[in-house]
Amino acid sequence: MINKNLFLVVIAGGSGTRFWPKSTSKRPKQLLNFHPSSVSLLEQTLSRFDQLVSPEKKMIVTTQFLKQAILEMELRVEILAEPQGRNTAPCIYWAARQVAEKNPKGIMLVMPSDHYIARPDSFISVIEKAAQWAAENDDLVTLGIEPSRPETGYGYLKTSPISENKSSLLPKRVESFIEKPSLEKAQKFIQSGDYLWNGGMFLWRAEVILKAFDAFMPEMKKAWNKSLGKIEEVYPLMTATSIDYGIMEKAKNVVTFPLDCGWDDLGSWTSLENLAVSLHAQQGSNVVTAGEVLAMESERNIIDTPKRFVALLGVNDLIIVEQGEALLIAHKDRSQEIRKIVEETKKRRPDLI
Amino acid sequence: MINKNLFLVVIAGGSGTRFWPKSTSKRPKQLLNFHPSSVSLLEQTLSRFDQLVSPEKKMIVTTQFLKQAILEMELRVEILAEPQGRNTAPCIYWAARQVAEKNPKGIMLVMPSDHYIARPDSFISVIEKAAQWAAENDDLVTLGIEPSRPETGYGYLKTSPISENKSSLLPKRVESFIEKPSLEKAQKFIQSGDYLWNGGMFLWRAEVILKAFDAFMPEMKKAWNKSLGKIEEVYPLMTATSIDYGIMEKAKNVVTFPLDCGWDDLGSWTSLENLAVSLHAQQGSNVVTAGEVLAMESERNIIDTPKRFVALLGVNDLIIVEQGEALLIAHKDRSQEIRKIVEETKKRRPDLI
Repeated sequence: MINKNLFLVVIAGGSGTRFWPKSTSKRPKQLLNFHPSSVSLLEQTLSRFDQLVSPEKKMIVTTQFLKQAILEMELRVEILAEPQGRNTAPCIYWAARQVAEKNPKGIMLVMPSDHYIARPDSFISVIEKAAQWAAENDDLVTLGIEPSRPETGYGYLKTSPISENKSSLLPKRVESFIEKPSLEKAQKFIQSGDYLWNGGMFLWRAEVILKAFDAFMPEMKKAWNKSLGKIEEVYPLMTATSIDYGIMEKAKNVVTFPLDCGWDDLGSWTSLENLAVSLHAQQGSNVVTAGEVLAMESERNIIDTPKRFVALLGVNDLIIVEQGEALLIAHKDRSQEIRKIVEETKKRRPDLI
Repeated sequence: MINKNLFLVVIAGGSGTRFWPKSTSKRPKQLLNFHPSSVSLLEQTLSRFDQLVSPEKKMIVTTQFLKQAILEMELRVEILAEPQGRNTAPCIYWAARQVAEKNPKGIMLVMPSDHYIARPDSFISVIEKAAQWAAENDDLVTLGIEPSRPETGYGYLKTSPISENKSSLLPKRVESFIEKPSLEKAQKFIQSGDYLWNGGMFLWRAEVILKAFDAFMPEMKKAWNKSLGKIEEVYPLMTATSIDYGIMEKAKNVVTFPLDCGWDDLGSWTSLENLAVSLHAQQGSNVVTAGEVLAMESERNIIDTPKRFVALLGVNDLIIVEQGEALLIAHKDRSQEIRKIVEETKKRRPDLI
């Protein structure tokens, strides 16, 4: 059911190139799709909330650099284009001002634009509970993800019960934010059951987050008032930091609703393998997200080569990606090192990044 | 020095696809080059004899199917287009009739069109001696290659001295032709020193080979006379067999001049690695015959990807070839099995073969 006070703020400014050459600075991950028949991750994120948020209350915060590419997607939602990227705190401040102006009771659901949700129905039902909570409590709600493995690449939330009542309608209190832990620590986190992954998803009333900005980052309001909200003038004056570091780690009124909905951050090519078959076409034991593949005695490869017929003979565990003039062939064990390739390619062929 | 009686007959009808997808049925190996800055193997073969054979005495025997592609190369030599491929005996008979008609003393040098010669000068000096011998003796000269390894993929010539005189101006007598041997036999051949590889290169007076045809394949002359030399009518009547089987294995007047000139038959992608650096560009320990390559912790790969920037990360011993819509990625150990890929691709995408 549409919640008339709920606004969706999708943050889509990222320019990561972990999916290079499919992703480039001009075509970052959120503008891509990973299935021959599906739409971009950004569009998936927007439409995931169709039953909760009406179209005129959806907005995308992105960079000037990506604005044109997003306009061409004709998404029919408001686009806030940052003059420059300054991490998440400034763009969330800007969006909060927009929401508060439109609706003093406005609730903001802040979402990254480039993740995958396997079970959207259970995701939506948690969002509904969280929105209800945020409407009735002056809390900053973060949506923590039930961890499925001792991942060392994510931040964690340490939680404690908010009351002795174990109702799933109640959130947990967030005791602290923990940066990427060691494997040993991550394993302890999983065993204790008190920790959640920090997925960068938030929900709060605009007035509550603006109050938190006034308390922990008072320079934001000063900058805003000094330039009368003219964004080109405000932005250079704002502190370029993350909402986690600037607000969440300092605030005392942080709670979390745990999510168990098949979340995946699509952090690298190999993450595609962990996902449900629904996301991508499988050919034998190879994952083919685009292109036609003939595999002979070749297994566990990930292939994204639109417009190409790829013949594999006796090769295993490769990432094979083509986009325009660039072709990447990497061993899956090295998927975290694709950034090295990107750095080196930037020197030789900046046009391909 | 130009030998006015010497004719060059280059056989260029092959349609092998061992270099697929770079080679296809329409663009077989002999029409390809394997170095960014060089010409096709066929052109290399023709120009290798510039100092011995004048242009109007060079001819190419090919198939109707390839004629247009060869015409477009503007090679300015005579092209004999076979109505259909019928192995080497018919096309050599046809070429011998052409040469005999033009010059009753004509000597034919019969060459495949798709091999590589690392040391053309020593090659040419052997050809000169062999041409001299063929002019003065009614022998069928075959050019045997000094074997460098116990190769089981080639045929061998068993030789014996022609006289006690050890002059290198004298050929050896060929005792017999031996089909692809077992490894054990091949090793014995190498040890004995009496064996050479059969490279399918021949040299003889046209009248001498025509006499041999009359002796061992008399049906050839009958077919020729019956159809008054009209090639469309002659060809279906000729016996489709190899010159080795039809003539050479039966004739008693076969001699050979051994060649030690860095010959390579370019039988597969891996053979490119064995060749001199002069043939191809090397980047680190990868062999790049076309395309731009960025290799990080990637070694011993063979890459032929014109028009593409290929980034390799943590991959070794791969054959990476792109042509048009097709991309092949094969482990080098499997280079002899590329025909399997070709067979399967033919079923799915005959346009790519």
